[in-house]
Amino acid sequence: MSALSLGATIGIIGGGQLGRMLALSAARLGFRVAVLDPNPDCAAAQVANQVIAAPYDDPGALGRLADASAVVTYEFENVAVEPLRALAARVPVFPPPQALEVAQDRVVEKAFLNGIGIPTAEWRAVDDVQELDHAFQELGGDCILKTRRFGYDGKGQATIRQRSPHADAFESLGSVPAILEKKVPFEFELSVVAARGQDGAVASYDPAENVHSLGILKRSTVPGRVTAALAAEAGDIAARILEHLDYVGVVGVEFFATTNGLLVNEIAPRVHNSGHWTEAVCLVSQFEQHVRAIAGLPLGSAARHADCVMENLIGAEIDGALALLADPDAVLHVYGKGEAKPGRKMGHVTRIVRP
Amino acid sequence: MSALSLGATIGIIGGGQLGRMLALSAARLGFRVAVLDPNPDCAAAQVANQVIAAPYDDPGALGRLADASAVVTYEFENVAVEPLRALAARVPVFPPPQALEVAQDRVVEKAFLNGIGIPTAEWRAVDDVQELDHAFQELGGDCILKTRRFGYDGKGQATIRQRSPHADAFESLGSVPAILEKKVPFEFELSVVAARGQDGAVASYDPAENVHSLGILKRSTVPGRVTAALAAEAGDIAARILEHLDYVGVVGVEFFATTNGLLVNEIAPRVHNSGHWTEAVCLVSQFEQHVRAIAGLPLGSAARHADCVMENLIGAEIDGALALLADPDAVLHVYGKGEAKPGRKMGHVTRIVRP
Repeated sequence: MSALSLGATIGIIGGGQLGRMLALSAARLGFRVAVLDPNPDCAAAQVANQVIAAPYDDPGALGRLADASAVVTYEFENVAVEPLRALAARVPVFPPPQALEVAQDRVVEKAFLNGIGIPTAEWRAVDDVQELDHAFQELGGDCILKTRRFGYDGKGQATIRQRSPHADAFESLGSVPAILEKKVPFEFELSVVAARGQDGAVASYDPAENVHSLGILKRSTVPGRVTAALAAEAGDIAARILEHLDYVGVVGVEFFATTNGLLVNEIAPRVHNSGHWTEAVCLVSQFEQHVRAIAGLPLGSAARHADCVMENLIGAEIDGALALLADPDAVLHVYGKGEAKPGRKMGHVTRIVRP
Repeated sequence: MSALSLGATIGIIGGGQLGRMLALSAARLGFRVAVLDPNPDCAAAQVANQVIAAPYDDPGALGRLADASAVVTYEFENVAVEPLRALAARVPVFPPPQALEVAQDRVVEKAFLNGIGIPTAEWRAVDDVQELDHAFQELGGDCILKTRRFGYDGKGQATIRQRSPHADAFESLGSVPAILEKKVPFEFELSVVAARGQDGAVASYDPAENVHSLGILKRSTVPGRVTAALAAEAGDIAARILEHLDYVGVVGVEFFATTNGLLVNEIAPRVHNSGHWTEAVCLVSQFEQHVRAIAGLPLGSAARHADCVMENLIGAEIDGALALLADPDAVLHVYGKGEAKPGRKMGHVTRIVRP
């Protein structure tokens, strides 16, 4: 695919905060935006030219999105792959559906990673309680049971400590195909946001050290405890993932830093919460970088000019958001969502850390 | 006025590129945006919640804008003051209409500046050809005749070199009240973009050296030939202007640098073309700074982290815009306007200048 023309329309499946921030960057580059979201008042609606209000897998709505768009992308990994493949027959879809397929099933994801020599936590696929019992015995230690699909923000997970019984845990996740992962005694969590263009060029942002709370990202610190050597290793791993998936767009790769080196925790085939700080201290944010990549344009510089800390504003934390501006070095981003439900991501703030 | 609440609506009179960039910044802070513009497909429409398509001085439309908005601002100085005063009786309007009144009449503007001790070119108000003849004799040298009102991008101007006759020049500008300014033998042009909050705090961006072509800004270089001493002087003058106008919002102040010091050329009571670079190298752009000021929020840092050059993309120059991204240090902003008419501002690009 050649580069989009000025004024071309970018289709985005999903109109949450990530779709909204993608739309803002697309607008700045002179592209128009069509969003597919069940909610006509979704966060992205304010800054999009068109909202197609329908379920993400509605064939007619996907057809209208294809008609309206010169390229289609998505803001979350739980969109169904099959309709996306059908869409890709009509209009370029980036990141490529095969990358989504890998990322949205934890077993496929880990098998892919291990297959290209990238270490992860030890894991076993478990389809029933017997397999779970057996896997727990094999892995030998505290484990985390996760659904293979549709997990996000810590949902669809249960810790397994005792030898048995495991039926309750398995049923608590809905008795669906799952993965048992050995719990990793990590020193800290980090992530890399990286991009690959249609020309194969890769640009990695510096890694962030991440802190989660109740399964939701709370804080990303750049550089945090990430040494230069660790940053280089994480960037190399991200680049290998991008190349093996023939990827186009931005990816988020989450890692555990252990005394034995880096383990990949998961791949998010989209712009990533732990990269929101890039809008504050990089010339080109992860959102613009993604737009450039899917539009067939050259990637921009991922260099950063300052250390910083990004914090999510979750639920009622948004109420105090404007007061954060008392710090002249705070960059605030509010998503324009209606109700501040508990656990809902409502905005984020990035604070510069002066040397 | 106290600070706006999250989700409050900001009304913007004018939906050109400045209104569009204000709307983008407003959205990022979680505000909604209503735009008044005669053209429902104006540049700001893509990123606004609501477009009121009507002439800028339509009383009914202004009433609807007041109903929709918690605060109203404007993107250009040629909006009529009287309807704005009427609007200000219903909803806060920033910058204050009295600042607009000063800025939109070159005679009032220069009288104001000289009155608070700020030097300008020598000037005379001229209402007819006889006054023009007389003023030219008094000023003694090459002069520029300008309409008092409604000039922009070099429109409404004529150079006067010979002693007489001056009837053609006066008629060429429409035989309207005018100002004769003595031509300033300047070394270069510069401008300061500064902001004043509702709390009286002032934040000035570093000045830019500007180059115009055919009356339109072509290039702003930061810092260009502007020394630290000159920058401080220009910032002080901008701060005095803001305080004497009891100003709220962003102002652009254009200067001539002469061997005898700075002369103010004009005041633009709005975000300013020569401040577009701030989005690339400052934590808080002039657009967000303006939104913060009019919303009653604290100003952000105006510090910049790099030297840079901003160039306007005018008319057909926009056709090559996306090719500019081959430079990874280029930040491109395209306004999403339809037809690339000659002289029309279609976008701009800021390039980082590495030391």
